Amino acid sequence: MTLRVPGLAAVAMLSLAATLPADEGMWLYTSPPLAKLKAQYGIDLSPQWLDHVQKSSVRFSSGGSGSFVSADGLVMTNHHVGADDLQKLSTPDKNYLKDGFAAKTPADEVKCKGLELVALQSIKDVTAEVTAAVKPDMDPAAAGKARQQVIAGIEQAGSDDKGGVRADVVTLYAGGRYHLYTYKKYTDIRLVFAPEKQIAFYGGDPDNFEFPRYDLDMCFFRVYQNGVPVKCEHFLKWSPNGCKEGELTFVSGHPGRTNRQQTVAELEYLRDVAYPATLAALYRREVVVGSWVERSEANNQKGEEELFGVKNSRKARIGGLAGLQDPKIMGRKKSDEDRLKAFANQSADPEVKKAAAAFDAVAAAQKALAGFAKEYGALEGGSGFATSYFGYARALVRAADEKPKPGGERLREYADARLPRLEQQLFSDEPHYDDFETLKLADSLGGLLTALGPDHEAVKLALAGKSPRERAYDLVSGTKLKDPAVRKSLYAGSKAAVAAADPMVELAKALDPLARALRKRFETEVEEPKRQAYAAIAKARFAQDGENTYPDATFTLRLAFGQVKGFTEDGKAVPAFTKLGGLYERSKSQSNKGPFELPQKWLDKKAKLDLETPFNFVSTADIIGGNSGSPVVNAKGEVVGLIFDGNIQSLVLDFVFEQEQARAVSVDSRAIEHSLRRVYDADWLADELTGKK
Amino acid sequence: MTLRVPGLAAVAMLSLAATLPADEGMWLYTSPPLAKLKAQYGIDLSPQWLDHVQKSSVRFSSGGSGSFVSADGLVMTNHHVGADDLQKLSTPDKNYLKDGFAAKTPADEVKCKGLELVALQSIKDVTAEVTAAVKPDMDPAAAGKARQQVIAGIEQAGSDDKGGVRADVVTLYAGGRYHLYTYKKYTDIRLVFAPEKQIAFYGGDPDNFEFPRYDLDMCFFRVYQNGVPVKCEHFLKWSPNGCKEGELTFVSGHPGRTNRQQTVAELEYLRDVAYPATLAALYRREVVVGSWVERSEANNQKGEEELFGVKNSRKARIGGLAGLQDPKIMGRKKSDEDRLKAFANQSADPEVKKAAAAFDAVAAAQKALAGFAKEYGALEGGSGFATSYFGYARALVRAADEKPKPGGERLREYADARLPRLEQQLFSDEPHYDDFETLKLADSLGGLLTALGPDHEAVKLALAGKSPRERAYDLVSGTKLKDPAVRKSLYAGSKAAVAAADPMVELAKALDPLARALRKRFETEVEEPKRQAYAAIAKARFAQDGENTYPDATFTLRLAFGQVKGFTEDGKAVPAFTKLGGLYERSKSQSNKGPFELPQKWLDKKAKLDLETPFNFVSTADIIGGNSGSPVVNAKGEVVGLIFDGNIQSLVLDFVFEQEQARAVSVDSRAIEHSLRRVYDADWLADELTGKK
Repeated sequence: MTLRVPGLAAVAMLSLAATLPADEGMWLYTSPPLAKLKAQYGIDLSPQWLDHVQKSSVRFSSGGSGSFVSADGLVMTNHHVGADDLQKLSTPDKNYLKDGFAAKTPADEVKCKGLELVALQSIKDVTAEVTAAVKPDMDPAAAGKARQQVIAGIEQAGSDDKGGVRADVVTLYAGGRYHLYTYKKYTDIRLVFAPEKQIAFYGGDPDNFEFPRYDLDMCFFRVYQNGVPVKCEHFLKWSPNGCKEGELTFVSGHPGRTNRQQTVAELEYLRDVAYPATLAALYRREVVVGSWVERSEANNQKGEEELFGVKNSRKARIGGLAGLQDPKIMGRKKSDEDRLKAFANQSADPEVKKAAAAFDAVAAAQKALAGFAKEYGALEGGSGFATSYFGYARALVRAADEKPKPGGERLREYADARLPRLEQQLFSDEPHYDDFETLKLADSLGGLLTALGPDHEAVKLALAGKSPRERAYDLVSGTKLKDPAVRKSLYAGSKAAVAAADPMVELAKALDPLARALRKRFETEVEEPKRQAYAAIAKARFAQDGENTYPDATFTLRLAFGQVKGFTEDGKAVPAFTKLGGLYERSKSQSNKGPFELPQKWLDKKAKLDLETPFNFVSTADIIGGNSGSPVVNAKGEVVGLIFDGNIQSLVLDFVFEQEQARAVSVDSRAIEHSLRRVYDADWLADELTGKK
Repeated sequence: MTLRVPGLAAVAMLSLAATLPADEGMWLYTSPPLAKLKAQYGIDLSPQWLDHVQKSSVRFSSGGSGSFVSADGLVMTNHHVGADDLQKLSTPDKNYLKDGFAAKTPADEVKCKGLELVALQSIKDVTAEVTAAVKPDMDPAAAGKARQQVIAGIEQAGSDDKGGVRADVVTLYAGGRYHLYTYKKYTDIRLVFAPEKQIAFYGGDPDNFEFPRYDLDMCFFRVYQNGVPVKCEHFLKWSPNGCKEGELTFVSGHPGRTNRQQTVAELEYLRDVAYPATLAALYRREVVVGSWVERSEANNQKGEEELFGVKNSRKARIGGLAGLQDPKIMGRKKSDEDRLKAFANQSADPEVKKAAAAFDAVAAAQKALAGFAKEYGALEGGSGFATSYFGYARALVRAADEKPKPGGERLREYADARLPRLEQQLFSDEPHYDDFETLKLADSLGGLLTALGPDHEAVKLALAGKSPRERAYDLVSGTKLKDPAVRKSLYAGSKAAVAAADPMVELAKALDPLARALRKRFETEVEEPKRQAYAAIAKARFAQDGENTYPDATFTLRLAFGQVKGFTEDGKAVPAFTKLGGLYERSKSQSNKGPFELPQKWLDKKAKLDLETPFNFVSTADIIGGNSGSPVVNAKGEVVGLIFDGNIQSLVLDFVFEQEQARAVSVDSRAIEHSLRRVYDADWLADELTGKK
C-alpha cells in the first residue's frame, strides 16, 4: 500500500555512483539498462518490447500507476489506487469502496468523477532549449522566470487539449536534463470491477508494508473515448503461468519521488526538520480524522479513504526517517559526497570544478528555507486550511488574477497547457461533507494559531477574532463553493464577481498577498539556487561516473527489474510467495476480527478454491510510492503480477537502494484470475483478461 | 474516562473571583461552602457528615479516586482506574482487563501489584512554619532549598511508614497556604470484581467524553491489613433509590490539576507552547502504540491500557486547548487580571501592592522556561527515554547518590518520608514486555534526536553512534532491571555496584549531570520565582475577594456539589439520565461492532433486565481528571452514583467553571446493583454493598 503518490511530486535529483548493486534502478525508457540486463541475466530487450510496454502503461491523476490489459481499453490497477474514485462514487445506499462492484455489461460500468489517465507516447530531450533561456548574468528571480517561460512555451506547443494530447517538460537530475513527455490523455474512465476493501486491504494498517501478505489489491477500469471503449493497439497480455522463484521480472510504473541524489546538507534538513514536521502533521491528522471516523458508520464512509492515505504516508515516512537516522546510511552518503567533492576539486574542467561550491549553495538554500518553512507550508502549502473548499477558493482567486496575464508570466500551474488539469479538479463533482470539512479546517486553524502565533497577520485574517472551531463552522457553512456549478460560473466570471462571492473566497483573497510573497521567496531563495547547484553537481557526477545511470524518481514512467526472491528477517527465511490458504490461516489466528475479518464471499467460497494458488509475491525490483498499480511483466512482456506495496525494509529506498531485504510486493496474476472465476463468478472479466473472449 | 490522573500532579494556584457561579468549587474539607449550600439549597452539612465522607474517601496511587463501601474494606472505583492493575495481573491465559473477574469468596481475591491506597485522616495548617523558613534576603536557590528542608522535616515528623501513616505537605494557592495532610496508607489491595472492559468502556474512544452514555465503569477492590480485610469505621452506605432530576449531590474525590488561577502570561504559554507540545507527543504516541497494538491480540493485551491512557489525555488536552484558543475565555481571564492588577496598584498595603510586579515575574519565568523546556522535558522529564527500564535505572542511580545525604539536602522525592513510595514503585513486580519497551524507547530516542539535534551531548550519549532502533534494542535486551530482585539488590547495594550494573544504568548515570543541571535551572529560574510571585498574587486576591474560596486542584481531597441536570447541545435537550435499554439501542445502531460490541453476557441476559433502570447520569458538579472513581453521595451521605467522566463541554473546567453545558458523568447506583444481580449473578457482592449481608 505504500505506493500511491498524492498528486504530482515533481522533484528530481542527480545521477548515481558508478557501481550499482545488481537490481538497482528506476530507468528512463530513453536509456534502459540493456547492457546490464544482458550481462547479469543474459536477456535482450528489443526496442519493440520497450515501446509496447511503455505505451501499455498508464498513470492515474489520483496518484498511481496502471496498465492496459485488453484490446477494449480495460485498465488494471490497485484497489487502493482506485479507492478515491470508489469513495467519490459511493452514496449512503451504495458503498463501492467497502462492498466492491462488478459491471457485467458495458452498460453497467460507472463513470468516475474527476479521474484522468495518461499514457506516455513519446520523449524528447529539450535540455539545450531550456538551459539556453537562462543567461549567466540573471539573478535567481529572472533565471527562474526565463526558464519557466520557455518551459510553458514548449508545453503549450506540444499540447492539444481537445485532441487529448498533453505535454509536460520533466526536470531530470534536478536540472541536469529536461525531457518533453507527450501523453495521450483520457478523461472518461469507468469502473468495471472492484473487490471488497476488506480483501483488497486485508490486514489493514497492521499488515501494511509487511510480508507475508494476503491482499487482493486490484481494481479494473475501462477507458472510453467518444462514448465507446477505446480500442488499444498496445495492451499487456496475461501470462497463463505466472512467475516462479528466481525469475527475472520487470516493473513499468511511475515512482513518485526519491531523494537518492540529494546532498548531505539536504538530507540532514530532511532528517532534522522536514520529515519530523511532516510526521507530526500526519500523526495529528491520523488521530483527529481517525477518532472522528470511529464515531459512526456514516463518518467512516466519509473519511476512511483519507484516513488510509494518512496512515500509509505515516508508515512510509517513519521508515524513511529511520533510514535518515541510521548513521550507517548517512555515513555512506557522506563518503560518496566527499569522493565527489574531491573529484570536482581536482578536476581540470572549470564546469566540473564548480560542483564543489554547489554543495555549499545547497546548504545555504536549506538554511534559508528553515527560516520560513513553517509559514510557507501553512500559507502557500495550505496546511493551515485543510479543506477542499479553501483549495477551490484559492484556485478561483488566482485564476481570476492569472488568466488575463500572458502565459509565460503566470504562476506555473496557470499556464495554458496546465489549465485543463486545474479545471478538471475545480469542476469535479466529487462529494464533500460539511461536518468532515469543518473538523479538518478547525483542526488546521488551531494548528496555524500554534505555528505562527496569535499576532501573525495571517492568523488574524484566518480566525477573525473567533475560536478555530467557530470560525471553521462559519466558513464551511457559509461557503457556496461546495456546488460545482457555482465554481464553474465564478471561474468563467470576472475578478470582481469572484471577490464578492463568499466568505471562503474572501479569506483566500485576503491571504493571497502573504502566500504569494512566501512563494516568491521560496522560488528565489531556495528553488532556483538549488536547481543551479544541482545542475552543477550533476555535471560533476556525470564526469565522475559516466552517463549510464538513472535520475531520481519524478512520478514519470520508469522501468525497474528484479528477481522473484524471498528474504531473511530476524534470522528467519521469508519465502517469496504466499498462498490463498495462508489467508485463511491469518484470519483464524486473529479471530477473524477487525482488519483480519474476511468478506462473507470469501468465507462462503472457500471450498471452491485451490488453496495452493500463489497469492502475493516479492521481488528485488527498485520501486517506491507511485508504483502502486504497476504491472509486473515477464521477459515476454506478459503480466505475471500487480505491484501494490514494498516491505518495511524497502522504505529506505527513498535514499539508497539495497536488495538484501528490501522487496517489492505484488499480487500474483494467478490469484487474480482464480479469485475472479471462483469467488466472484466473474468469468466474463477473467476471459477478457486472458484473451478468451 | 477523562478523570484519571497519571501519577501525582502537584501544582496549585491562586484563589477565585468574588462571585462564583452557583455550583462552582473544588472545596477543601477544612473550608467547605456551608453558607453557600445553606443559601442556595437550604442544606446544612454537619461536621460529622464531613468527617465521615472524608474518611470514607480514598485515593489510588495509580491516579484516581474511590471510596469505602462496606465495613469489610470493600472499595469502589472506576474500571478505568483499576485497569492498570487488571492489566498487571493478566497473563497470556487470563485477561482480567478484557474478560473481567469475580471473586466469590475472600480466598479468590487477587492481590494487586504495586497498588497503594491512602485515606485522609487529618489536615493541619503549617503555612506559618513553612513560610518562616524563607528569609527575605535569600536568592531563589537558597529560598527553594530552605523551604524544601522545612517541608521534608514536617513530613518526616508526621510519617510512620511501618505504622501505615503518610504525611504530605500540600502547597495550596501556589504558595498562599501550606497544609499538612496525614493519611492512612494501605498497600495490600485485592481485586474483588471487574466487569468486561467492553461494557465498562462501552463506546470506547468514540464515546469518551460524550453524553448520552452507557458505561458500567466500575471496579471493586478490598483493602487488607495483616492478611485480613480491614475493618472500616467509616464507609458509605448505599442509597436504595438513587437520585432524581434536580437533586443536590456531592462528589468527594481528588481532582488532579486545574489552571484557573494562572496569569494570562502563563495561560498564553500553555496555549502557544505547552499544550501544543504535549498534544504533539500524545498524537505521536497514540499512533505509534496504536498501530503496534493492532498487529496482534498479544500486542493488544500488552499495550491497550497505555493506549487508552494516551487517547484519554489526548481528548482532554484537545478540549483544554480549544478553551485556551477561545478568545471569549481568554478575554474573561484578561479582564479579571486587569481588575486585580488595578486593585493591587491602588492598594495602600505594600504587601498587596507587590502583586502588580508579580505578574511580570510570572511572565519572565515562563519566558525563561521557553528557552529550555524541550531539553528539560526530554532529559529530566524523561520523554526522550520512554521505557520503564530507564525510569528504574535513573531511580537507582539517584538513590545511590541521594540516600547518603541528610534528608533535607536530597532531591525532594528521595526525602525519607517519600522513600517508601519510591520503593513501592521500584520493587513492583508488574510485568514488562521487551518488544513493547523497545518500540517505545526507539520512538522516543528518534524524537530526542529531532528535538535536540544530533550534536547535543545527551543525544550522543543516548544513541552511542547507533540508529534509534538498534540502540533501543541493545539497551532493552541488555538490561537486567526487568527483574525486580535485581532492582532490589542494586537499591540495597553500593554506588559502585549500581554503576557497574548494566547498560541502561550506565546511560542513566551518564545523563544524570545534564538532567540535574536542567532541574536546578527549572527550580531556580522558574519554580521558585513563580511560587513567590503567585504567593504575592494570592495575597492581593484574598484582599480583593475575601478568603471564602477554594484553591486550584492539587490531586488532594476536595468536596464538590451539583444538581442532577440535563443540558442543551446544538439546540437539542439532552436528558440527565440514560437507561439500560439505551445501551442496546446504541449497539444496534452501530451493528454491534468494534467499541460498540456488547459482551456475550449482556446479550444473553438482556431478557432478565429491567431496561428502564437508570444507567448513567449527569450533574453540574465541578470535577476534573483525578475525580475518576469518586463517589456521588446524597445529602444523607449515601452512594447514588460513581463519577467516571465529564462531557466534552466540561473540558474547559481546567481554566474556568461554567454550568450551562459542562457536566460530570456518573454510573447510577441502581445500574450497579441491577447489573451485579441480573447480569453477573453476583448477589453476594450486591448484598455486601447494600448492607444485606
